[in-house]
Amino acid sequence: MLPDFRCNCPFTSALDILGDKWMLVIVKQIMVEGKETFKEFTESDEAIATNILSSKLKLLEEAGIVLKTQRPNNKKTNLYLLTDQGLALAPLLVELASWSDSYLRGLHPGMANGAELELLRKDKAAFAEHLAKVYREKRGLAPVIEP
Amino acid sequence: MLPDFRCNCPFTSALDILGDKWMLVIVKQIMVEGKETFKEFTESDEAIATNILSSKLKLLEEAGIVLKTQRPNNKKTNLYLLTDQGLALAPLLVELASWSDSYLRGLHPGMANGAELELLRKDKAAFAEHLAKVYREKRGLAPVIEP
Repeated sequence: MLPDFRCNCPFTSALDILGDKWMLVIVKQIMVEGKETFKEFTESDEAIATNILSSKLKLLEEAGIVLKTQRPNNKKTNLYLLTDQGLALAPLLVELASWSDSYLRGLHPGMANGAELELLRKDKAAFAEHLAKVYREKRGLAPVIEP
Repeated sequence: MLPDFRCNCPFTSALDILGDKWMLVIVKQIMVEGKETFKEFTESDEAIATNILSSKLKLLEEAGIVLKTQRPNNKKTNLYLLTDQGLALAPLLVELASWSDSYLRGLHPGMANGAELELLRKDKAAFAEHLAKVYREKRGLAPVIEP
């Protein structure tokens, strides 16, 4: 069940939903890494435990960020897709990565530093649009999925 | 003590530091609401418990986001100021509020909906710059505080 909202502040209200170790990591795995099944999420570098993953996927669905569905030809495996509301988190993800890139290298020298960061450094808004666009194209999505 | 980084992903690394219920709420209280003392933080709408506040302020200091200092004429009260690295979270805060404003009103009809959201809706980057600029001016800051 979604937590209660602590107050009427829009900054805080987003954190009531997203403010934890995992919610945005799962959104990132879907949007940036193209993962879509429970098994794929568990095989990520972040090594999420299955019980936590189950509960976070439920919360993401309840919040309207993720849509649980199945492939037409394989009803046994659940797919977790981003809704429009989930894809709208692209700029937030980009701000997280940008801040890490600028400020966390001293604390975390091993952090990835590859060519894919170039677009992010050059133009954050363009990078966010790119992430959302690639996701839509890959999923063969019409412009919008409503939860 | 700061948590370990889970992996080398820049998206996830930011969440290793910031991904919880409180860290960004405290940054927001400082940047947006102008709070700077322990007492002021406890008097916020979010009603943070004092033991949690203490531990989060320590983490914010360790991460280089907040600088603990005192007024020249009153050494008894600690002030918590944002460093440059902390002020650089302005665009992230703005993305949180923007996403709430666009998508959480259905779940949270009481969320604030005042005139101060106009600039955010019109131009997120300008709103983030505005927040950081107002903070610097209010604190009489030279362009940068290093932790």
